[in-house]
Order: sequence, then C-alpha cells, then structure tokens
Amino acid sequence: MRQIRHIAGILAGMAILVGAPSFAQDADLSPEIAATTDQLIADALLDEVGLQFVEDLTTEVGARLGGSPDEARARVWAMNALKELNFDRTRVEDFTIPYWARTRESARVIGANAQDLVITALGGSRATPEGGLEADIVRFETLSDLKAADADSLAGKIAFIDERMYKTQDGSGYGLAVRKRGGCANAAAEKGAVACLIRSVGTQPHRMPHTGGMFREGALGALPAAALSGPDADQLTRLLDRGPVRVNLDIGVEYADAAPSGNVIAEVEGSDLEDEIILIGCHLDSWDLGTGALDDGAGCGIVVGAAKLIADLPEKPRRTIRVVLYGSEEVGLFGANAYARQHGDDLDKHMLAAESDFGAGRIWRFQTNFGEAAISYADVMKQVLTPLGVSEGDNAAGGGPDIGVLRRAGVPVVTPAQDGRDYFDYHHTPDDTFDKIDPEAFRQNVAVYAAFTYIAAQTGWDFRKSEPTSMGSD
Amino acid sequence: MRQIRHIAGILAGMAILVGAPSFAQDADLSPEIAATTDQLIADALLDEVGLQFVEDLTTEVGARLGGSPDEARARVWAMNALKELNFDRTRVEDFTIPYWARTRESARVIGANAQDLVITALGGSRATPEGGLEADIVRFETLSDLKAADADSLAGKIAFIDERMYKTQDGSGYGLAVRKRGGCANAAAEKGAVACLIRSVGTQPHRMPHTGGMFREGALGALPAAALSGPDADQLTRLLDRGPVRVNLDIGVEYADAAPSGNVIAEVEGSDLEDEIILIGCHLDSWDLGTGALDDGAGCGIVVGAAKLIADLPEKPRRTIRVVLYGSEEVGLFGANAYARQHGDDLDKHMLAAESDFGAGRIWRFQTNFGEAAISYADVMKQVLTPLGVSEGDNAAGGGPDIGVLRRAGVPVVTPAQDGRDYFDYHHTPDDTFDKIDPEAFRQNVAVYAAFTYIAAQTGWDFRKSEPTSMGSD
Repeated sequence: MRQIRHIAGILAGMAILVGAPSFAQDADLSPEIAATTDQLIADALLDEVGLQFVEDLTTEVGARLGGSPDEARARVWAMNALKELNFDRTRVEDFTIPYWARTRESARVIGANAQDLVITALGGSRATPEGGLEADIVRFETLSDLKAADADSLAGKIAFIDERMYKTQDGSGYGLAVRKRGGCANAAAEKGAVACLIRSVGTQPHRMPHTGGMFREGALGALPAAALSGPDADQLTRLLDRGPVRVNLDIGVEYADAAPSGNVIAEVEGSDLEDEIILIGCHLDSWDLGTGALDDGAGCGIVVGAAKLIADLPEKPRRTIRVVLYGSEEVGLFGANAYARQHGDDLDKHMLAAESDFGAGRIWRFQTNFGEAAISYADVMKQVLTPLGVSEGDNAAGGGPDIGVLRRAGVPVVTPAQDGRDYFDYHHTPDDTFDKIDPEAFRQNVAVYAAFTYIAAQTGWDFRKSEPTSMGSD
Repeated sequence: MRQIRHIAGILAGMAILVGAPSFAQDADLSPEIAATTDQLIADALLDEVGLQFVEDLTTEVGARLGGSPDEARARVWAMNALKELNFDRTRVEDFTIPYWARTRESARVIGANAQDLVITALGGSRATPEGGLEADIVRFETLSDLKAADADSLAGKIAFIDERMYKTQDGSGYGLAVRKRGGCANAAAEKGAVACLIRSVGTQPHRMPHTGGMFREGALGALPAAALSGPDADQLTRLLDRGPVRVNLDIGVEYADAAPSGNVIAEVEGSDLEDEIILIGCHLDSWDLGTGALDDGAGCGIVVGAAKLIADLPEKPRRTIRVVLYGSEEVGLFGANAYARQHGDDLDKHMLAAESDFGAGRIWRFQTNFGEAAISYADVMKQVLTPLGVSEGDNAAGGGPDIGVLRRAGVPVVTPAQDGRDYFDYHHTPDDTFDKIDPEAFRQNVAVYAAFTYIAAQTGWDFRKSEPTSMGSD
C-alpha cells in the first residue's frame, strides 16, 4: 500500500514537472463554486446556529447515555431542532442495543488508612454485592504486566493497572491508554481477580475520573471494573508503597438486553444529483457523567451548522447532504452498524463521508481517503482550507469511529483533524460541559465542514475513481 | 493608625538621612546568627522533612474533618510523627466542638430538562427530608440582591446566589466571595425559602464544587444549603433563561453538640529564654472532600520542617519554638479559641506568632505587626528574606485565622504572604491533594519560616516594645 502511494506521488510530481495535463488542472473549481465556498467560510466564521445547537442540546437535555430515556429525549429534542431549522426528510432510524447504566459507585480504603477514593464504574462493569466487596489490591504498571502475571495469582484480589496516558495533538495517546480500559477486566478475571481498577484514561490532574466502555459481550463485561481519578491512583500507589491495601468497592448497575436507540437524520436535498449522498456525521449520545459538550455535542453542532449554511444558499446543492446524528456510539458503535445495515443497498451512492467526533479544537490538518485518480480533488480541498490554518494531510484518512464501517465498505472519507491536546482533559468526565467549548475554534470547524461538504456536493466529483488507497485507521 | 505609621516612616527615613543612630543599627544580626540563618536557608531549600510530613499525613490519614474520627486519627498520627522527629514536649490539648458531617448529597433538575447537578453541602447545612425536597429556583446575582428581595417572596422556594469569585494574588477575592457562603441560608430563610444554593466559592472551571462553613450557632445553620460547581451554576442559569426550573435537593447530615478535637503541640526547647515562646502554627484538620494537602497539610509541613531544622542545630535556640497544629480550624476556629483559653495566662510570654494556612505557593511578601520601636527588627528580617524573592511588606500583618486571637491580645505577628493566585482552584474541593504541591515553592516557604523563626528565637528581640501598631486584618 505504501508502495502504491509512493509511486502515485512520483507520478503526480512528474505531471507537474513535465507540464502534462495534471490532476490539479482537472480539478479546478468553477468561479461560481469558488465564490460560494468563500462566502460559506466567511459566514461560518460568524456561526450562531451550530453553537446554539450545542448549547441547547447540552443545556436542555444534558447527559444522554446510549439506550437511556435521556438519549430518547435527545432524539425528540434533535428532531424538533432540525425541523425548526427546515432540514429535509428529518427522521429517526430506530435500533436496539444492550443497555448498561451505573446506579451507585464508591470505593474506600479500609483499615488503618481508611479513606474514600474517587472512582467511576466503566461501561459494562458488573455489580458488586450490595455494600461492596472487600479485597486486597495488586498493582500493575501496565496491562501487559497484568497479562504476564501467574495464573491464579490474583485469586480473590483486585487488579489495579496504573498505566498513564500522555497528551498528543492527534489523540494517539488515547489509543494506547484505552487498551487497559477495555482489557483490564478480562485479563484480571483470567488470573482469578474479583474486580479491576484502572488509572483513568485521561490527561488532567484533577480528581475527576474518566469513564468509558470495557470489552463485553452484551451489556456486561467480565468483572466489576472502575477507573480511579489520577490523584486517587497516585494515592493508592503511595499507600501500596507503605504496605498492603484493602479496598471496599461498591458498584451497582442496571442493564437490559435490548433498549431503544436510534440515528437522527436530516438532509439538504440535492438537485440533479439528488440520489448521491455526502454524509457528515457526529454522535448524539454521550457518557452519563458530563453533558457531552465536547463529546460529541460539538461535533453535532459543527455538522448541523455547516449543513444549515449550505441549506440556506439560494440554490440547492447538486448532491444531497445527509447529516447523521448517530445513536449509541459510546457504548459500542451501535448507530454506525445500524446505519450500515439499514443503508447497505445504497452505500455506492455515498460519495463522501466525514465525521466530527474529537471535541471542538481547531482543525489543523485535512486528510483524505480517495481513489488514486481522485487525489487532485483532495488537493483542491486542501488549497481551499489553507487560509483557515489547516495543513495538508495524507491520503490515509480513517474517517472516525462512526464512519469507519462506511470507509471499510469503500466509501471515500476525509478526516478534518482537530487539535486534541486538551480533549482528554474533559472527555468522558463530569467536566465535559458547554463552557469548555471555545467559540472561535468551533466556528473554524464549521467553516471547514461547510467548505469541503459544499465542494463535494456541488462539483459532482467522483472521489472513488479507483478504490480508496488505504484502509487508514480509526 | 495610618497617620502614625506615616510619621514613623518619615522618622525612619530621617534617621538614615542624618546619620543618627538608626533602628537598623540597633538591630543588626550578630555574625554568628547571620551565618546560622544563611545555613538554615540553604538547608531548607533542600528540605525533605517538611514535604514528607505532608505526604505522609495526606496519604496515611487523608481527609480529617474537625471533630471526626478521621481528625482523631490525625492527632495520633501527628503525635507519633512529631515524637519520631524528636521534638520536645509533644502533646495534645483537648477540647470539644459542635460536630457536623454530610452523609448524602445530590441535586437534580426535574421535569422536561431532567438532569443531575453537581453540588456539595455547606458545613452546617440542615438535612432535607429523605428523598429530597422539591422547589422552584429563584436566582440572585449577589447576596445583596437576595437581602433586598421582598419579605416572603421566596416562600417555599430555593434561593440561588450566582455571585462569582475572581483570582487575586493575596486571596482578597475570597473575602468577598465567602460572604454569600456564610450568609445565604440566613438571608434566604428570612424571605421564606426552604433551601439555599450558591455558585461555588472558587476560581476553577471544573465540575468540582467547593465546600466550607456557613453561619451557624452550634452544629447547624438555618437551612439546607449547598454549593454548585461553576459549570453547574452556569447550567442552572442557562436553564432559568429558558423558563422556571424545579430542583430536587437531597442532603443528609449527622451532627453532635460536642465531639472531641484538639491542638497538637510540639516544641524546640529554648535555653536561657526558655519561657519565651515563638509560635508557628498551621491547622491539622481539613475539609472532608480532599485530603487537605494545600489546606492545610502544606502549612503543617512548612512549620514542622522549619522547626526541625532549628531543632537540629548544634545548640538550642535561646527562646522556645512552639509548633501548634490547630484542630477544627475549618469549622469555626475552635482550636485557636481553645488555645487562647488554655494559654490565656502566659500570652505575654508569646513573643511572636506566625501561621501558614494559604497553600504552598511561594512567599512573595513579608508583613509584620510589631511595636513602633521594633520596626528595625522587621527591617532586618526583610533583608534576610530578600534573596528568597520576598518583597517588603508593611507593618499591618493580620497573621492568619488561627493566630488572629493572639494578635488581638497583643502578640506580635508576621504574615509571610504566599502567592494564592491558584489556591482557590483547589481549596475546599476534592482536588486538594498532594500532587498539587510544588516542592520548590514549598521549600522556599520552609526557608522563610526557618529564617525568621530562628532570628526571633535567637536574638531575644522584643517585637512589642510598644503595642503593635495596627489591628491588621485576618
């Protein structure tokens, strides 16, 4: 794959050098499209619609856990909001999911150093007995160390993985850190443990634990499992330096095999290419601790704001713009999979997909995942975005969690990469609230989405031409 | 008072100008004392004892609410720690206090916008009925606005004061903000309200509410009362912009008229002036949400670290250095008042008092409150501290909350003012934990305390000479 891209790069370079008809010439924007795009960007930088959408969603609904009555209320809310914005064909596409919710959670060191620890249960945690289970703590630096422990060495104990997460602009630190969240309970159960504690996946120094899903079949994982806040993980480590530590862990949960969820969909109807779809998405659900402002209210505000600007143009775009507010992303990409199931027959009509699900930081890079013969279209988009401070990315875009399934089915995608350095200070914590959104950075996002979405809809370009070049990464 | 200080300043200036025998000449340090002070400073900047004291206290005991079994455990812990450090006459001076503790707390918006709010009960809050009380919210910008409301206008409602606090280096923003915490319940009760909510006193943007005491006689105040985190106060305000808001507030408390508390005291025995006391203090208790690292584990580590350096000198200091770890400061300065009662007969033997209770930020200013004829001693102390980055303060030192009672009784005090710009990001919240202490700034504090304490003990100077010049402010 790398080889093919390398050759393509040489060919593209040669085309420019020898003055042969280049892809870039093929892909010039018409003066009309260029002017409209410029106007959309200017308007987006003054966006009120998108920002209001996030404010209203996070204020009027608040937290909206996948499968919960709160998420159901969010669907009704979103339907009303999108209808009021005069989108076309606003609708809910229903599906069901295995449902899990916390009902109580606490942890307390017992014995001579008795004290409370701040924890939050992981999505899929089993319940402990009422009143908690009591067990000694065994600490591991990493998930790998836990996996390398002797069989049965944790019989009757609580495994504690203290692995840290580090800040990165592109969020790559999360991919590493999240493995311990997913895998702790399974690995601990294999060694005979009765529960699992992890240092929160997250990058802030506050006593603010970070929830998120663990590996599970159906609603429940292997063990009771919870995340300690960073300072509490430090505290537990300091206590373990002084001798054995026994903890009472008390977690209550409710769950169901099938709870209602759904994708909320709204469109800007196309004109002569109406059956061709440019999909821009986000997810409507959130974790239960915060109000899901950065994850992913902001993403929904960004795509709704961008689509609304295009809807308000004097003329309909040629292709249809489909805004998808996915349901139940956090708890297992259920909305994404339902969409792929429900639209399996016309995925070839999906001409481009993009997703905003990484907070509200400025977009700093624009990646594509187009067919080789469509690279020149990527170049045009990148040129348009340069004045917004967006650098040129490669052609290995992953797209994002909810549209990964589309990319894998051959739909061309782009990744407008947001600056995520601070994202994991808030993500999945109580602190994910509206005040954390920087309006200026948010509006730059709306501008980027409005620009590439309009270009994709209005030019009618084929981003496939040949198959997309790389499977990218989620 | 200002007038007197002004004249003194002129006189001091004249003395230098005309070359008359100046107070500064009177107050030169002997070469031996100067050299020992320099050595103490150098050693303090490498302090391990003080920092270890805070780490151990906050790790092994954790939170230690005044009057609670946790505070009792802290006294035992501190006695052991101080004895191990070989202090003289280590002891507990007992007293009792009215006791209050939270047992449960939650708040939830009910109705169409149902969602949880993050709160914490204020010290002295009354309980609500089990399961909570439900009432409409009435918002006020300030405590004054609430006080100005019509009589009975809040009948059956919950008052909400949204007043903000702003960052200041000297903590003066706290004095303003704390009035609403103290006064909300009384003012609300007068208007017929059933409960009181305030925006947290504090300066951070996190979903981390800030507890603290409210006005009360005995253990309980006038109403159930709680603080919302900043983002939750914003959320409530946004909801109120959209229409009436009804909240379920559920607070459980336990309380007692008399619970055991105590001051832990340790000394460095003096030599020829043994019965004269230099008192350096802190408070041992903390609020229950954090581990009391900045408030006031750090203060205890600073004074213990400084005293230990002096205790380890080859020769005893001339005067006795008394380290007082006050009990039950947070819940009403009970330790300070007990100390004044129990030592009322020998307050004239208290030659100087100082207190560290403002976190672990660098000391940026050194204020005194000495008799006019002793100002030259203040000048010497300030000169010694200048190389530590400490600027020269005035002679209107307040001393601090626990030694205010001593100052009012005529004991000379100093205020080594810590940089408190970030203090209220953590103070009284779950986030007041050991990781928030900057070791370098902490050690500068130890150096300052070691220096002025040693000078005061070893010179035998009389800081009273005449009465202290100003009542200062707490």
